[in-house]
Amino acid sequence: MTRFRDLIPIFDHLPTGPRNAITDVPGVRVGHVTRIEGDGKLVSGTGPIRTGVTAILPHPGNIFREKAPAAVFTINGYGKATGFEQIRELGMIESPICLTGTLNVGRVWDALVSYAIRENPDIAISTSNVCPVVGECNDNKLNDGQGRHVSAADVLRAIDEAGGDHVLEGCVGAGTGTICYGFKGGIGTASRQVLDGEFTIATLLQTNFGRRPELQILGVPVGKHFEEDEVEAPPGSVMIVIATDAPLNARQLERLAKRAAFGLGRTGTVGHSGSGDFAIAFSTRNRRRHEAHAAVRETLFFEEEALLGGRAAIDQCFRAVVECVEESVYNSLSAAATMTGRDGNTVEALPHDRLIDVMRHYRRV
Amino acid sequence: MTRFRDLIPIFDHLPTGPRNAITDVPGVRVGHVTRIEGDGKLVSGTGPIRTGVTAILPHPGNIFREKAPAAVFTINGYGKATGFEQIRELGMIESPICLTGTLNVGRVWDALVSYAIRENPDIAISTSNVCPVVGECNDNKLNDGQGRHVSAADVLRAIDEAGGDHVLEGCVGAGTGTICYGFKGGIGTASRQVLDGEFTIATLLQTNFGRRPELQILGVPVGKHFEEDEVEAPPGSVMIVIATDAPLNARQLERLAKRAAFGLGRTGTVGHSGSGDFAIAFSTRNRRRHEAHAAVRETLFFEEEALLGGRAAIDQCFRAVVECVEESVYNSLSAAATMTGRDGNTVEALPHDRLIDVMRHYRRV
Amino acid sequence: MTRFRDLIPIFDHLPTGPRNAITDVPGVRVGHVTRIEGDGKLVSGTGPIRTGVTAILPHPGNIFREKAPAAVFTINGYGKATGFEQIRELGMIESPICLTGTLNVGRVWDALVSYAIRENPDIAISTSNVCPVVGECNDNKLNDGQGRHVSAADVLRAIDEAGGDHVLEGCVGAGTGTICYGFKGGIGTASRQVLDGEFTIATLLQTNFGRRPELQILGVPVGKHFEEDEVEAPPGSVMIVIATDAPLNARQLERLAKRAAFGLGRTGTVGHSGSGDFAIAFSTRNRRRHEAHAAVRETLFFEEEALLGGRAAIDQCFRAVVECVEESVYNSLSAAATMTGRDGNTVEALPHDRLIDVMRHYRRV
Amino acid sequence: MTRFRDLIPIFDHLPTGPRNAITDVPGVRVGHVTRIEGDGKLVSGTGPIRTGVTAILPHPGNIFREKAPAAVFTINGYGKATGFEQIRELGMIESPICLTGTLNVGRVWDALVSYAIRENPDIAISTSNVCPVVGECNDNKLNDGQGRHVSAADVLRAIDEAGGDHVLEGCVGAGTGTICYGFKGGIGTASRQVLDGEFTIATLLQTNFGRRPELQILGVPVGKHFEEDEVEAPPGSVMIVIATDAPLNARQLERLAKRAAFGLGRTGTVGHSGSGDFAIAFSTRNRRRHEAHAAVRETLFFEEEALLGGRAAIDQCFRAVVECVEESVYNSLSAAATMTGRDGNTVEALPHDRLIDVMRHYRRV
Repeated sequence: MTRFRDLIPIFDHLPTGPRNAITDVPGVRVGHVTRIEGDGKLVSGTGPIRTGVTAILPHPGNIFREKAPAAVFTINGYGKATGFEQIRELGMIESPICLTGTLNVGRVWDALVSYAIRENPDIAISTSNVCPVVGECNDNKLNDGQGRHVSAADVLRAIDEAGGDHVLEGCVGAGTGTICYGFKGGIGTASRQVLDGEFTIATLLQTNFGRRPELQILGVPVGKHFEEDEVEAPPGSVMIVIATDAPLNARQLERLAKRAAFGLGRTGTVGHSGSGDFAIAFSTRNRRRHEAHAAVRETLFFEEEALLGGRAAIDQCFRAVVECVEESVYNSLSAAATMTGRDGNTVEALPHDRLIDVMRHYRRV
Repeated sequence: MTRFRDLIPIFDHLPTGPRNAITDVPGVRVGHVTRIEGDGKLVSGTGPIRTGVTAILPHPGNIFREKAPAAVFTINGYGKATGFEQIRELGMIESPICLTGTLNVGRVWDALVSYAIRENPDIAISTSNVCPVVGECNDNKLNDGQGRHVSAADVLRAIDEAGGDHVLEGCVGAGTGTICYGFKGGIGTASRQVLDGEFTIATLLQTNFGRRPELQILGVPVGKHFEEDEVEAPPGSVMIVIATDAPLNARQLERLAKRAAFGLGRTGTVGHSGSGDFAIAFSTRNRRRHEAHAAVRETLFFEEEALLGGRAAIDQCFRAVVECVEESVYNSLSAAATMTGRDGNTVEALPHDRLIDVMRHYRRV
Repeated sequence: MTRFRDLIPIFDHLPTGPRNAITDVPGVRVGHVTRIEGDGKLVSGTGPIRTGVTAILPHPGNIFREKAPAAVFTINGYGKATGFEQIRELGMIESPICLTGTLNVGRVWDALVSYAIRENPDIAISTSNVCPVVGECNDNKLNDGQGRHVSAADVLRAIDEAGGDHVLEGCVGAGTGTICYGFKGGIGTASRQVLDGEFTIATLLQTNFGRRPELQILGVPVGKHFEEDEVEAPPGSVMIVIATDAPLNARQLERLAKRAAFGLGRTGTVGHSGSGDFAIAFSTRNRRRHEAHAAVRETLFFEEEALLGGRAAIDQCFRAVVECVEESVYNSLSAAATMTGRDGNTVEALPHDRLIDVMRHYRRV
Repeated sequence: MTRFRDLIPIFDHLPTGPRNAITDVPGVRVGHVTRIEGDGKLVSGTGPIRTGVTAILPHPGNIFREKAPAAVFTINGYGKATGFEQIRELGMIESPICLTGTLNVGRVWDALVSYAIRENPDIAISTSNVCPVVGECNDNKLNDGQGRHVSAADVLRAIDEAGGDHVLEGCVGAGTGTICYGFKGGIGTASRQVLDGEFTIATLLQTNFGRRPELQILGVPVGKHFEEDEVEAPPGSVMIVIATDAPLNARQLERLAKRAAFGLGRTGTVGHSGSGDFAIAFSTRNRRRHEAHAAVRETLFFEEEALLGGRAAIDQCFRAVVECVEESVYNSLSAAATMTGRDGNTVEALPHDRLIDVMRHYRRV
């Protein structure tokens, strides 16, 4: 798996965490289940299969019992993400976040209920229901979308096998069948340290958006050097998950989520109508217990306007989000491999050597 | 099935449509599948079952091919409704609206995909995905929620058997297991004619909200005359579907959706934290084709501020929504029958005779 | 000044604070400047004048230096309230809230800048700008609106003379020229104690909304007993200010603000298109300093879902808002006196004796 | 006045309109009043003055009588823009849009009322109030902000002298005292033709945002080549006005407004906390009369999803917004001249020769 920094240096960014991944936020774990089966002509309901599921867990505990502060922002709402109304209302998530192919959403939602019941057998009996959070991108160009091939077992496995170390990127999990700027996209992640390393901000993206001529990498108009080859694909989407251990509340997390658009903008997209672009942000701090019995407790407040070195404290968090989103896109492109799916549809990976050539031409290497 | 007006007269409201139901909007159809099975102790995954599904179809055609202008408004977001992001973005729905018990949402979502594929075999192949719209209330007090007993077949049947005539109310479909103001709730509907009968505004509600002492009926503090008997139940929710044949656009439909809170307020609720209260509004006019090939076409615009009889034209629509929401709550209570569900939990119907007595005491009969 | 409870008993509500006024929230102060000058034919720019300004101060300190957590909710946005974007973004207010007649907004905004500079001479020099919060209702039926008669001196006096004791209601300050349900409206206030008296929730309203036939008082259809006399007036508006000493954050305050619609709904309105209905909610706790130098500090968190007596803690807050909004409307009507303004336009006060008769007929007295 | 394209070529963008300015949208006019007076030490209330006002008029007619469809989007709400609630509710504007320095907002608001009354003497008498739309940026680094030096006469002159031909850019009108990426900012404009020239999309920006090291121009990291010189300034803001003659409705215009963030992102900003970033979009088509007497009329609908050349029709509009916002920033920087203001504070213009050198280094010239 090649990461973007293996190919091209990035200057002038905030320092990364040790893994440059969402798992640099302590406690955050990621699991993928990748479904690649069959080749050739599409037989709807059978295959070929090029899809999967990626689970992001905010902490190692019981997320239903210890909910994480969270927020969402819809950059472009042409998509089927679930759970957003409740996140907006209550400012928290109580379920792992699962990303998948579009038409799998219902089944993944249902599997997240099964997971919640397995961990909390009193759900819907002596306690309330659970609110699954599912995001999606359209992977139908390569995949048998009608088949909805992500099963409950796949979802449970992605959760149960989620790990907190290095994160696989590219054509894995929810990124198995996605297309980004006309190249093979997939999963990408990155992290930044803010406030002298006191906190980490990190992102994980499922990239499935953009037209090839638009692609900019570190400001270089890479896409126009590759215009000849773009596959004919429907406009896709991008799911953006933002994690931090800074004690941000829901309003502040929404501000972070809004900055994702700046990061996407740097990579060249104009936000196509058919692209469902959603950001979900959570903090691992200030968790809220499912059962509370006192009306008031102490919590931490992030002084977003505190002046640190002449800048508002939250400005570094914003910068971190923008940089992480940008680099996650590049990581998804760098790690992805050329994929052939249903009906022989093939999506080329971004060729590393040609990328380096272009970047060199513009004096970035 | 008793309707509220069979018990208590309503004065000073706008005229109703012929059925005083959402089906008074030409083309709108409603289908219910009711699942009442088993008795006694809860065996999670088995029963007893007290749930169901209600499908609302905006028009008799192919809703994916001819999308209906639509809007949503979240009064209180503690709920799991799906499809809202896309409705906000594009201002339309392309799927039947299905209401159900909370934990069924994933399965109903998936069934709506199956329905869309059955009607449009090119979905996810040569054309885009579909955006299912599902609303829910918590029916776990009476029902085996963990069992998620609404099947794909149930959903398809609710859609296929949907009719445009009288609408069953009370303990049917998505209202099978719901509780409203501590009485048995369920489905309720009502309609009003506006602008001298030129257009109809109508609502259908799945009622599952409120505490008994709060209940007001036509302003009469009915609930406090029944305080002795309330079942201990978690706070519920209410799903509100608003239909009209006035050519309202998405922004205007959202204005209608926002007025639902005024109607709920009349019935006494304060909008409990745990109550997911959502309104979905659609128009049957100005449909949008899935495939369009010209950038501009003519459409109808509702002049909301046009002065008709000294009032803004849309004010009558607002009044109709408020009245319909209010009466739909009463209809759901009047039509519902006492229901015993899992673990012998029993929710009493609002006793008609005592209601009449109370209303008489306050000189409303 | 007659208060509603002097006329009609209210049962089954939460206990009020000692003054049943927004000043029951410790530290909150209210000041009015009332401008009633001239009679007879309108001479635009000269008079007659029937307008004013009402200032609400969250605490006795320097509000710019110690900002109050705050939120807004727009029930119907046909109005000119200012400051909402910044309140939404930062979740706080840094200025007194001023209510006034519509066309005065610019001048009141400018006066609030002058006030902020007087108290903080470094504004716009060594520190940032200030965000004035102004709400308004249309008082043009009685008042020379074009004259914009509220001066900077009026605004400063309303702030400087604001007091924390009893609040004048009816035709004072911003309520001088307003019309509510076809009767003379004005300022109304109310308060409730929640969580066994630990916290207070209170409201102050500028009432200028509703059609007479709609008016409901405690559920009684009062308005239809007065249909003969309504003055021809444009649809008005209502400004709702909610205060509390519960340590609610911005998201939670927005939830409170949203409940105002339920309270308005109880009084009969359907939310007319031309009525700008806005709610602003603030907490006097967890203030934020203008200058902070540490990124994290401790704060109080209100556990909105904590179960207290089987109910979510915030449910009592919601109930308090609904009850306060409802009673504030009644107080504004009860306290207001018949007013004759420009061109001899006269708006009758709600006749207390006839009101009592109607309430008695429906067995509420 | 130097425009960016005089210095650096732009490739691969949509074609511009004849003036590459917001006035390429037929009927749109722009007027500036620039206030540059005095030098030396700040005497609050006196000067030095470096501020102004810019008026944008959607069409040559009476905007109160013929309102323009409009929408807003708040990228970052730390600002004082007015009129947004009503635009969101009604989807239209009825006033010229005025941009100015922050603390002038109240006076400009009041002047817009005076303008509306001058053109419509029945305002607040026989017809309703008017909703002024004012945007602002903080120009206090160079200007005597407390003095609020933009007078009603200035506003009326900006409106009355507004023209539909070439638009002055840089240090004019509302851009007189602004700072962008640590260089002298100001007014910038650009336009694009979409759908084979059938429609025009254009923007006008008041630029006052960004830190110098962040500045990217056409993707080139220009800012880091100028890190030595940045003036110490508070974070600023950016006001973005988007105009089109495509018949977009309010929901679609909001989608355009949201794309502005992608354009800003291209120029390097991360959306600083203290930067109030607002977009206002309007269409010159489908105007709405102040008085209407029929509930329904015909209007044009833009088929945003119509496939034109394999792309959604609105995608070209989105692209146009992103390109125009990006180029407007560059134009504001290219046209601005070094300015010395209060207390001798000096903000350097972006040096054209060094810019060209840097762009050449990265092979963009």
